Amino acid sequence: MGLEPKRTVAELAELRELTGDENGAQRVAWTDTWETAREWLRGKVAATGAVEEIDEAGNQWFTLAGDSDKALLIGGHIDSVPNGGWLDGCLNVMAGVEVLRRIAADGKPPLTVRLVNWADEEGARFGRSLFGSSAAAGSMRDQDELRQRRDANGIALPDALREHGVDLDRALDAQKQLESAVAYLELHIEQGPVLESMDLPLGVVLGTFGVERHQITWKGQAAHAGSTPMDKRRDALAGAAKLALEIRPIAAEVGEGAVCTSGGVVCKPGIVTSVVETAEQLLDQRHLNAGSLARLLSLAKEASERFAAEEDIEVSWERIWSIEPILFDAALIELADQSIRDVSGTAHRLPSGPLHDAAEVARAGVPTVMLFVQSLRGLSHTKLEDTRKEHLEMSVEALDRLTAKTLEELA
Amino acid sequence: MGLEPKRTVAELAELRELTGDENGAQRVAWTDTWETAREWLRGKVAATGAVEEIDEAGNQWFTLAGDSDKALLIGGHIDSVPNGGWLDGCLNVMAGVEVLRRIAADGKPPLTVRLVNWADEEGARFGRSLFGSSAAAGSMRDQDELRQRRDANGIALPDALREHGVDLDRALDAQKQLESAVAYLELHIEQGPVLESMDLPLGVVLGTFGVERHQITWKGQAAHAGSTPMDKRRDALAGAAKLALEIRPIAAEVGEGAVCTSGGVVCKPGIVTSVVETAEQLLDQRHLNAGSLARLLSLAKEASERFAAEEDIEVSWERIWSIEPILFDAALIELADQSIRDVSGTAHRLPSGPLHDAAEVARAGVPTVMLFVQSLRGLSHTKLEDTRKEHLEMSVEALDRLTAKTLEELA
Repeated sequence: MGLEPKRTVAELAELRELTGDENGAQRVAWTDTWETAREWLRGKVAATGAVEEIDEAGNQWFTLAGDSDKALLIGGHIDSVPNGGWLDGCLNVMAGVEVLRRIAADGKPPLTVRLVNWADEEGARFGRSLFGSSAAAGSMRDQDELRQRRDANGIALPDALREHGVDLDRALDAQKQLESAVAYLELHIEQGPVLESMDLPLGVVLGTFGVERHQITWKGQAAHAGSTPMDKRRDALAGAAKLALEIRPIAAEVGEGAVCTSGGVVCKPGIVTSVVETAEQLLDQRHLNAGSLARLLSLAKEASERFAAEEDIEVSWERIWSIEPILFDAALIELADQSIRDVSGTAHRLPSGPLHDAAEVARAGVPTVMLFVQSLRGLSHTKLEDTRKEHLEMSVEALDRLTAKTLEELA
Repeated sequence: MGLEPKRTVAELAELRELTGDENGAQRVAWTDTWETAREWLRGKVAATGAVEEIDEAGNQWFTLAGDSDKALLIGGHIDSVPNGGWLDGCLNVMAGVEVLRRIAADGKPPLTVRLVNWADEEGARFGRSLFGSSAAAGSMRDQDELRQRRDANGIALPDALREHGVDLDRALDAQKQLESAVAYLELHIEQGPVLESMDLPLGVVLGTFGVERHQITWKGQAAHAGSTPMDKRRDALAGAAKLALEIRPIAAEVGEGAVCTSGGVVCKPGIVTSVVETAEQLLDQRHLNAGSLARLLSLAKEASERFAAEEDIEVSWERIWSIEPILFDAALIELADQSIRDVSGTAHRLPSGPLHDAAEVARAGVPTVMLFVQSLRGLSHTKLEDTRKEHLEMSVEALDRLTAKTLEELA
């Protein structure tokens, strides 16, 4: 029985019916609906003969033994954000199931093949994304902090995990899962507009952007909107406004896909009758090259100091979070490129703006690559998220070809 | 017994002790502390022989009968914002008491002289400023809306007023108080930095600014901060940022004291990982000239449409509130100017950015003028509000001279 990409599309629709509602997907990790999805997945994989194991971090593994213990991994995540889309995360899982079926039908593979459904990629309930993959990668270093986290109802993260059989103190034992891994493949919707704007179904992902995320606080002086002449003001909003516009020439100057976003400004006192005293501005900067990312940050800091001097206000920076760029494996990128050309004729290489479990696996030293399939209107994390059915089918084919080429290369 | 300006300063300090705490003045209208202040004021005026009357809007009048029924009014407000300053509003009242004492000591005046302590100038509890003066002026046209207003504890405005003897339905009967008025004089702290920056103790107020107050909504498209290239964004914050900066050249172009303030921007979704979809921006524009005010507004609207086109976003305007400029009486401005020169040698003429009860009285057709005394650092509505004692004393002298000159002129 060969590959049936149409079946993947039908199964994704089935999963949507089972675990979504009129507002979208509801497979938030560490909930009953998520367990329903995992149980449903278990049933789908059963016929392949792959053996299930849930590791110490809650990741769900299905292993098809091969001639060698060395393992090729295919990964995705069946959890979603609340009111999420029908493809984010679970496309990878279901395409992986279809590839497993094709391999199982072909007889014992040269390498062991493992499908992993990572636990809590989205971090929707507790605000900690990439939970399961960071545990397996050994990069989870925030367990003390995680112990304090609570969901919106005040339930502590360790208590919620325990209900799903996971002991936070032992989550890092999941690291042993990657010991035998020689390659990691992940297919994902792009969640951005690049492939659609180029009219291409598929792309090879070069790596995930490094991220610098800061809160910038501008401090001026509150003053009455009526009684304070324009030249006597120290307006904190002016600093934030200048920087919100300046990040665009900065991104253009650094180039090579650089993105900078000011996602919000909170003004205090924030009333119509007062000059803004304090403006708290969010800034997110991303680049695939570590040096370029550092340059984005230093240019923004220089600009902010210039603006503070111009406006006679103060500026201070606080890092919220950062991660270095993670580059995928050159040899696997070549194989992915060939696989896409086989299926669609043209391949495009692009960085990933969002993080993915693949980044954690790559950080752990496992050769990794990702495929992107076009997203309509770049929308994700909404029920409006969509991809053309023919593109979904092509993406399953491309993942299958990439798996076959990788098995051949590494056998 | 002549004028004793030092006594006014001492009485203001006494009032601060009686009705303030470590956070500042607490004489919020329609509270027990406000009643305490009114009772204390009653005691201070008693010796002058002025007759007290509380009108249908809660305004407290003290009338010293003169040879004519035509009345010269001196006005202020003893109510404060919570955690307010020791001078805002009550300086005018207490300076007026001192002037009443001087006049009473001099014998029956040629005109009737009335001191009014306006009810609820600040609107601190129910968000409706100039309550008493707008009722007396007959410009209160929002009684239906006022009936619905509640304070932070859910108490309805009409119920709170009733506890202080005021029936909202009859508040406009206070209009009869202005029938005999031939002049209205008000002294106030500047609440801005202009006089201090010119090193002048006193100024003549030309009128109160007209105000245009709008909420501007910019609508773009939420998009992932990592996966959306810079040239594919429709960033609502960019529109707000451009306008926050553009209002400065617009104010400079219109000139003559024009002020424009963007007091805040609220961004949605307002998260670090998303381009801003919606930015709600506050804009306040003020000018003493109605045509110039209209020009400020039209220039800002034109600019906003240009920015919306540049950014491929939408912009819409909603008026929050507006008021026309109110010009004070030319003859009284001359008398005020002379009075200040008599006391301090130099007078400066300036508009008032904040509204005052005087604006309501002027709208009602009573010839009106205000005196400003320097505010230190332009601060008001905070316990840090202050004015040098020698300047306070000069301001009492200036009000007294202005009263004397006005009586002489109109007798």
